[in-house]
Amino acid sequence: MVTEKPPVATVATNMIVVLDPDAPDEAASEVVDLLDAAGVDCHVVVDQGRQVVIAPGAPSDVVAAVAGLSAVERVVKTSGPAMLVSSAYSPKRTVIDVSGVPVGGETFVVIAGPCAVESRDQILEAAHAVKRHGARLLRGDAFKPRTSPYTFQGLGESALKLLADARDETGLPFVAEVLDTRDVELVAGYADMIRVGTRNMSNYALLRELGRQSKPVLLKRGRTATIDEWLSAAEHVYGAGNPNIVLVERGIRTFEPSTRNMLDITAVPLVRQRTHLPVLVDPSHAAGDSSLVPSLARAAMAAGADGLMVDVHPDPASALVDGDQALTPSEFGDMMNQLRAMAAALGLAI
Amino acid sequence: MVTEKPPVATVATNMIVVLDPDAPDEAASEVVDLLDAAGVDCHVVVDQGRQVVIAPGAPSDVVAAVAGLSAVERVVKTSGPAMLVSSAYSPKRTVIDVSGVPVGGETFVVIAGPCAVESRDQILEAAHAVKRHGARLLRGDAFKPRTSPYTFQGLGESALKLLADARDETGLPFVAEVLDTRDVELVAGYADMIRVGTRNMSNYALLRELGRQSKPVLLKRGRTATIDEWLSAAEHVYGAGNPNIVLVERGIRTFEPSTRNMLDITAVPLVRQRTHLPVLVDPSHAAGDSSLVPSLARAAMAAGADGLMVDVHPDPASALVDGDQALTPSEFGDMMNQLRAMAAALGLAI
Amino acid sequence: MVTEKPPVATVATNMIVVLDPDAPDEAASEVVDLLDAAGVDCHVVVDQGRQVVIAPGAPSDVVAAVAGLSAVERVVKTSGPAMLVSSAYSPKRTVIDVSGVPVGGETFVVIAGPCAVESRDQILEAAHAVKRHGARLLRGDAFKPRTSPYTFQGLGESALKLLADARDETGLPFVAEVLDTRDVELVAGYADMIRVGTRNMSNYALLRELGRQSKPVLLKRGRTATIDEWLSAAEHVYGAGNPNIVLVERGIRTFEPSTRNMLDITAVPLVRQRTHLPVLVDPSHAAGDSSLVPSLARAAMAAGADGLMVDVHPDPASALVDGDQALTPSEFGDMMNQLRAMAAALGLAI
Amino acid sequence: MVTEKPPVATVATNMIVVLDPDAPDEAASEVVDLLDAAGVDCHVVVDQGRQVVIAPGAPSDVVAAVAGLSAVERVVKTSGPAMLVSSAYSPKRTVIDVSGVPVGGETFVVIAGPCAVESRDQILEAAHAVKRHGARLLRGDAFKPRTSPYTFQGLGESALKLLADARDETGLPFVAEVLDTRDVELVAGYADMIRVGTRNMSNYALLRELGRQSKPVLLKRGRTATIDEWLSAAEHVYGAGNPNIVLVERGIRTFEPSTRNMLDITAVPLVRQRTHLPVLVDPSHAAGDSSLVPSLARAAMAAGADGLMVDVHPDPASALVDGDQALTPSEFGDMMNQLRAMAAALGLAI
Repeated sequence: MVTEKPPVATVATNMIVVLDPDAPDEAASEVVDLLDAAGVDCHVVVDQGRQVVIAPGAPSDVVAAVAGLSAVERVVKTSGPAMLVSSAYSPKRTVIDVSGVPVGGETFVVIAGPCAVESRDQILEAAHAVKRHGARLLRGDAFKPRTSPYTFQGLGESALKLLADARDETGLPFVAEVLDTRDVELVAGYADMIRVGTRNMSNYALLRELGRQSKPVLLKRGRTATIDEWLSAAEHVYGAGNPNIVLVERGIRTFEPSTRNMLDITAVPLVRQRTHLPVLVDPSHAAGDSSLVPSLARAAMAAGADGLMVDVHPDPASALVDGDQALTPSEFGDMMNQLRAMAAALGLAI
Repeated sequence: MVTEKPPVATVATNMIVVLDPDAPDEAASEVVDLLDAAGVDCHVVVDQGRQVVIAPGAPSDVVAAVAGLSAVERVVKTSGPAMLVSSAYSPKRTVIDVSGVPVGGETFVVIAGPCAVESRDQILEAAHAVKRHGARLLRGDAFKPRTSPYTFQGLGESALKLLADARDETGLPFVAEVLDTRDVELVAGYADMIRVGTRNMSNYALLRELGRQSKPVLLKRGRTATIDEWLSAAEHVYGAGNPNIVLVERGIRTFEPSTRNMLDITAVPLVRQRTHLPVLVDPSHAAGDSSLVPSLARAAMAAGADGLMVDVHPDPASALVDGDQALTPSEFGDMMNQLRAMAAALGLAI
Repeated sequence: MVTEKPPVATVATNMIVVLDPDAPDEAASEVVDLLDAAGVDCHVVVDQGRQVVIAPGAPSDVVAAVAGLSAVERVVKTSGPAMLVSSAYSPKRTVIDVSGVPVGGETFVVIAGPCAVESRDQILEAAHAVKRHGARLLRGDAFKPRTSPYTFQGLGESALKLLADARDETGLPFVAEVLDTRDVELVAGYADMIRVGTRNMSNYALLRELGRQSKPVLLKRGRTATIDEWLSAAEHVYGAGNPNIVLVERGIRTFEPSTRNMLDITAVPLVRQRTHLPVLVDPSHAAGDSSLVPSLARAAMAAGADGLMVDVHPDPASALVDGDQALTPSEFGDMMNQLRAMAAALGLAI
Repeated sequence: MVTEKPPVATVATNMIVVLDPDAPDEAASEVVDLLDAAGVDCHVVVDQGRQVVIAPGAPSDVVAAVAGLSAVERVVKTSGPAMLVSSAYSPKRTVIDVSGVPVGGETFVVIAGPCAVESRDQILEAAHAVKRHGARLLRGDAFKPRTSPYTFQGLGESALKLLADARDETGLPFVAEVLDTRDVELVAGYADMIRVGTRNMSNYALLRELGRQSKPVLLKRGRTATIDEWLSAAEHVYGAGNPNIVLVERGIRTFEPSTRNMLDITAVPLVRQRTHLPVLVDPSHAAGDSSLVPSLARAAMAAGADGLMVDVHPDPASALVDGDQALTPSEFGDMMNQLRAMAAALGLAI
């Protein structure tokens, strides 16, 4: 007698169908019809001018049938939720152009600046300081998502104007956060790159809105997001039409009380295995403690990150937001010197 | 010789200054001026017609000085981030009116229905079934936040119309989720209560928008949010002008792989200690497995929850979203019978 | 062209071969030889006088061949790591006899007493108080595992003698913790039931030593253990020869700072699905705060737990260990009254 | 009117009283008497021949009185649970001698070898391979703590003999795990260093037994332990008499399913701030995936670790334990070459 309690095996095959670049518009319909007939849901997207059909959960005989269609250039099978952002779809690692500054590739890029724009003097002083020490992009926020509604929420559009002035003075393109779908156009009108913060990583309405415009998007990992959920968030932006995405690991939530978040350094090599998008590390928000930032910054470079995003403030003790984690310009300079020494050993430009 | 490494002690005293109901408008200015002179940041809000000044981090001598002002009815000192939502501010537990159905108080309220509206037949059948077994409010979504951009995202406004039809037929008020600040007016135009989902608990732009309208808000806990962060999210809604908030515990993220999330049953008595707002439990999204739902529902009632939000689907196997966790109408009926037996023993109406 | 990245499917079939009760000793060898020939690792254990062969990861043709052997009564297939403790192996729920007190079954059992034995007066007063209010078993420790080596570590053997005196006076059997393989015989010489604490759940040397003696074992969940790891720990005890095991859920470690641990109430129905062993809840160590204990105790009963283990101290403010979480005898009495009312509604004896 | 809900402030001052090296034995009694009179609990330990009195939670006037005693060389005040292991007690970083190999200091030490000893050939081949590529210490276990009781549990004493043979052939001292207080003498009789595994980090009976012998102890972090709990575990060993302790960060448990554990790289700089003991990183057990090991190893060096412990197996595919995470000798050689390049840039010997 055999008492049965059968084990469960789940096989999910996701398929990306890439059409020939010169396939006619109706070619996609042919793929869709074939999938419809087989009962497989699918979505047609246009990636950089080319039609692509995405079909999660396709059976293998359907995959074969689709691959045989004449207008199909190639069929990519993936496991996991990443589709257009997956390394299976695009084995070559992507370099994102941020107003002339390349992110990804053989150069280790450093984005630096204050957490929030507080005044003209503060942002200009910060911008000049980080540029002097080797940062290639400036950070600084106009809209701050704060746990309490009764603390400083950012200066709004006037901060975007100050950031633009800082860019004019220093030549550093800047990245700023957006919090509301209604502000995307406003922020995109000033910033060179738009950031999605950790609290909004699963705000899909915002992600889709960013997918409908063309400025590069800096997508921070949610503090409770798995790596696959993070890549799915990137997929929301990419699938909506914007392939210019840079990922930022910034620490997740664990039981350890010593630090604000816990930097998941393993995410760096894992993301490089799973996606073609560049990945940066934000050691400032991970640690929440400036004394730990240089060690984590070195670890990020050593683990293979494409760069850093670091809080630097002319006077951290007076910062309105997150002063504990901001480096002084001088500390930032020391850190950059260490990174330059390491970069040489690792064959990286910086 | 004493080598010093001093211990750190942090004392944060938060103050809520409640003015007399008939205090003139300039009375608040007097409080603000006193606080400004002492270098204490503060915010003036109007809570149900009465002026209130909120001052996080006030020193004790300033508290005493403010308490002495003639237009001040009372000064409430709190620890923790909850201010207007704190039980210190309003020791009496609040009952929220949802189109005639009270949430909170001596009645255990059950909200039930499908995760997503899929068709006219599905939502009407579900509405009649949950009403028959004792639910007082209907759930069902028009906009679904999905991890993948390539899965069903909800039927949009047409689903809101179907929910309104189900309300007309059954008399059950309904709650539906909103995902985008631009859709708040649309959803508020149909629904009796607006839900903020776990992914948007820290979407402060959305919370503030909901604070500016008057429909009750059902605020789910973020799957990675501490209880204090959840109460702070409620504070964003309350501080923006809407005191009609119901909290829903729905499980947090842990290392345990057996369930989708882990129900934090301890949150129920903790929230009742810290806030005056009603708190419900969603056992369906916590467990992600309908076989566990009745046990968790009973535990929620026993722990002191003010009610439940439960997924019920006429045919869970065919559900487009989260079918594994939905009860059939018959299972829901059995669960309600168990709850009625317990309610009698605990002195609750249901 | 198809770019392949094949999905992975893992199927693990675990087999438990139960021989006829009157099968000769060499019957097990026949099973083992068949498995050896097929390259399947296996272990022979004796469960309550009957030979059982355990073979994790057996292919289905081997399962069929073994099932056909004449001395084989039945073959149980399981998924997951639980074997002898699984509900597949023994569908009937087990009742453990602790010196005459049944744990499991239709009675809700309450174990209560101080965390640590501190003095003769303290343990006697506690024992009388908890008996008066309805506890059936006494708790109290002689050996305390403390995070700091410089705090009270327990009174050792003299505490075991005091517990035996309390048993003599009240008739309550008692449970005490053991920390060292070398102390198992000592503790077993006094106690009616031996506890494995959360810190030692994965101390397999200790678990095996407890499996080699016959006193019932109270196995607390490790604060970082998954449910399957916990059941595997029970399997270590059972497989070494002792089937008398009671599980205790006592909270796991999460990011939430409000409580010492987070009670995983969902573990109760899950454990009841996966194992035939009784499962209790310890609300005291979960919450670390006596004000939360009654709510969690009620939730435990409602969720289906077989009982509770609760800290009760005659004078919590003076307790040497964990006073914050201990109920006074009077609070304990109030809680027991609430539980009795609920038990009647749920059809349980208490 | 002021409604009070006072904030709580806790100040814990821990005191370490170091007596003059030539203080008479009764000098400690004088300190103890003074503390007893003030109602402060204390413990006398002997650290490397010198009397030390440890008093957690001493008020400041008592600290001053003790500091004034003539036999007192210095009084160290600390916050946090680390006492003898704290950097406050011993600001100079400690170097541990493992049979002639220094761990800590300016050299980056690599411990490598198979997870478990499986055969004479396997361990000898592994030992020669890791030596050839630059490892200074050999790892390999005789006793394996396994989640399932039905899997390979190690070869026991015969494995210790094989490790000793490998040491004889290669000159590499070796480290092996102990699981049972009763085996400490046995393992110490063979091994150069004794390892406490992650499952036993809070097995205080085992820690104290290791404190009573003199072989160096390699203390892995519990997968659910905070950094302070880990340092407290080290304090158990140190306080019992053995100051020769090396810490190993090996990943903690989080919600992320991609890796077996999550390497807490931030623990490296934090441990270096809080303790004088050396800290290594085990990237193999953290990741559970050999493809991630080189990235994490580089990150460990960059973050300031004193070395690594790495799984290397002559044939990972055939390994009885944890083959997925073991490097081949050739992969190990490549990784060591990368580390040598980085070490030069960072001013480290390797």
